[in-house]
Amino acid sequence: MAQTLDDLPPRAALAEIARDFHARGWMAGTAGNLSARADDEHFWITASGKPKGRLDELDFLLVRVRDGEVVERVRPDNKPSAETAIHRALYALFPGARACLHGHIVEAAVAANRAKKGAKSLRLPAIEMIKGFDIWRQNPKVELPLFENHLDVAKIARDIETRFKKTKPDVTALMIRAHGPTVWGANLQEVYNRFEILDYLLRYQAQARPR
Amino acid sequence: MAQTLDDLPPRAALAEIARDFHARGWMAGTAGNLSARADDEHFWITASGKPKGRLDELDFLLVRVRDGEVVERVRPDNKPSAETAIHRALYALFPGARACLHGHIVEAAVAANRAKKGAKSLRLPAIEMIKGFDIWRQNPKVELPLFENHLDVAKIARDIETRFKKTKPDVTALMIRAHGPTVWGANLQEVYNRFEILDYLLRYQAQARPR
Amino acid sequence: MAQTLDDLPPRAALAEIARDFHARGWMAGTAGNLSARADDEHFWITASGKPKGRLDELDFLLVRVRDGEVVERVRPDNKPSAETAIHRALYALFPGARACLHGHIVEAAVAANRAKKGAKSLRLPAIEMIKGFDIWRQNPKVELPLFENHLDVAKIARDIETRFKKTKPDVTALMIRAHGPTVWGANLQEVYNRFEILDYLLRYQAQARPR
Amino acid sequence: MAQTLDDLPPRAALAEIARDFHARGWMAGTAGNLSARADDEHFWITASGKPKGRLDELDFLLVRVRDGEVVERVRPDNKPSAETAIHRALYALFPGARACLHGHIVEAAVAANRAKKGAKSLRLPAIEMIKGFDIWRQNPKVELPLFENHLDVAKIARDIETRFKKTKPDVTALMIRAHGPTVWGANLQEVYNRFEILDYLLRYQAQARPR
Repeated sequence: MAQTLDDLPPRAALAEIARDFHARGWMAGTAGNLSARADDEHFWITASGKPKGRLDELDFLLVRVRDGEVVERVRPDNKPSAETAIHRALYALFPGARACLHGHIVEAAVAANRAKKGAKSLRLPAIEMIKGFDIWRQNPKVELPLFENHLDVAKIARDIETRFKKTKPDVTALMIRAHGPTVWGANLQEVYNRFEILDYLLRYQAQARPR
Repeated sequence: MAQTLDDLPPRAALAEIARDFHARGWMAGTAGNLSARADDEHFWITASGKPKGRLDELDFLLVRVRDGEVVERVRPDNKPSAETAIHRALYALFPGARACLHGHIVEAAVAANRAKKGAKSLRLPAIEMIKGFDIWRQNPKVELPLFENHLDVAKIARDIETRFKKTKPDVTALMIRAHGPTVWGANLQEVYNRFEILDYLLRYQAQARPR
Repeated sequence: MAQTLDDLPPRAALAEIARDFHARGWMAGTAGNLSARADDEHFWITASGKPKGRLDELDFLLVRVRDGEVVERVRPDNKPSAETAIHRALYALFPGARACLHGHIVEAAVAANRAKKGAKSLRLPAIEMIKGFDIWRQNPKVELPLFENHLDVAKIARDIETRFKKTKPDVTALMIRAHGPTVWGANLQEVYNRFEILDYLLRYQAQARPR
Repeated sequence: MAQTLDDLPPRAALAEIARDFHARGWMAGTAGNLSARADDEHFWITASGKPKGRLDELDFLLVRVRDGEVVERVRPDNKPSAETAIHRALYALFPGARACLHGHIVEAAVAANRAKKGAKSLRLPAIEMIKGFDIWRQNPKVELPLFENHLDVAKIARDIETRFKKTKPDVTALMIRAHGPTVWGANLQEVYNRFEILDYLLRYQAQARPR
């Protein structure tokens, strides 16, 4: 077994993550989308509408960060994920981001649903696991950015862009309400780890009683 | 691995789905039944009373849509699923339906149990995942048809037939109260995907607090 | 794959069930015990204190129903399960019982904990899945026998014997409070199926709101 | 398959446990740390910051109980787990402890969160499963030691040391609030078994209604 996901070719790693996330119920149906930077200007992203437990290395498209142009596609009828705009926004905002994973987690949606209407963020529980986001403070007050879901994905992407240009988030993650978490980071293994950590934190929050 | 379930022979695909659903707890004991059209007039359906984690390609019977006649059975003592009448009703109602999956999900039964007595449908949560049913509206109001459970399966089938002849459902799925979901669709992969999606939606509903 | 568990030699089948139940969390630590009749007078039962995910065919002892005498043991230091007395009681009471499975399920213990103090049974939910216990009635009122847990296992066995000599249970299963379910039946596959079904019914009950 | 984890070389066994715990969600991200004594004076412990589903036998360091000195490391840039101090404290306190496992379990954190502020222990439910901690009493009152979480791990280790020097705990386990359980014991298989048992007990407690 590879020591980290980054020891695999990026598309092989993404296909492995897709099978893993699908088996956990985080990519039900064809939901979710995964990407990794190929170079500073481009990233590989999952093709749209494919069952995520069955991807192979040909089911990724190379997309240009700047304008979303598809630069390479192996299977001619593959289309980039409908949420490519969100990945583009994050890669443009955070030059250090080399990978970006988005899935759907029932408990995450349940936890987010408890936030007040219009709330811009969800306070993450101040439990040990939060160190996985590289936060090393006693009883940290960490906010997970919350975004409203829109049918028009471009609008979600613009909201992310507008907000994060003004204010850097506390964590390399965000939650779209009634939808799911997106996590980005310096390499695939880090983003995979933090996706697990965010799942843990939000499952905790969905179950814990307010004190 | 096959790119989609439809790249496999139908009975091999159904046996694979049965193992998958059994492992997830959706086919406890010998519960549930799966079918796929062989041609416009006939469908393959799981034999009755078999442990669903152990089916092979010989555990399916070829049944005629029109009258339920068993046209082919490889193992002579195999009987078609007790709920064949429901599959027949759906294939007769929806000529485009090429596959039909029925299982039992604890959380689906819990969610349905919260609907008022006599309610004819359950409002699905207006979350992103609903796009998996090809619904592309902001805050969609989508109703999952609810049917009462009867010991006499033929009565459930007639109820489905009567209601759907009058009113097309919002989604290619229904829920039998105190029983389980049934999903149909244009091909096996689509129906498999939507079964996962319905599971997701109903698990969300079983946990989410009313707002 | 074998078509049913009964196509395997009994000890191989029991070892396979043990791995399966362990993986589901139903045999945490070394908890639980599984048996199958070898002939009318004897049954094979799991050795005591073994991790249940790691049993092989040598980890079973042949025990005489009548007096609990160990008739055969392959590994000399293996001892029969501490709950052998319960298996003996059930095989003596029900000559048709050819297998008996006992595990621990968190949700089953949670559901049983909701029964009133001193209650002799737990009403099972009248949902479709109950047909797996061969109950074919509309809205059946089915009681799962409840027994108090005692440190002295022999006392549990006597309670079972005393009660079932007077009254046959509605189902081939019982629940020991604060402990776990025991299921018996005509063959290994049937008992395995019904264990899954009881798990389903009690998980439903642990989650469903009273109506 | 090995009959018990102790039939494997210690580092191979720890790597296997790490994959197992990761797959169950008990080592999300790089959380958790596992150790086994090599001899009376030293123990092998997981390297810090590695994804726990991908460890191999080179990802362990040999640490001296007395002063925490790293005596052997195969991969030169591996560092011992940040929580090595806790393992050292436990090995120093309990000469019979040969292994020590620490993970993070959502339900355990939820259960611990229900204890009163400042509570020094959590009453474990008096259910059958508690026998797995070698407690053989009817309705036993067993307390799981609770420790506050501190950013400074050395402080947690000192708290453990101070308390356990005065009072031996009821069980070979403790819980760090908002963090996770730690279990130690006479051999790897016993500790593995008891980790499963503690998970069971705390999942029960997180779900059971107070009576």
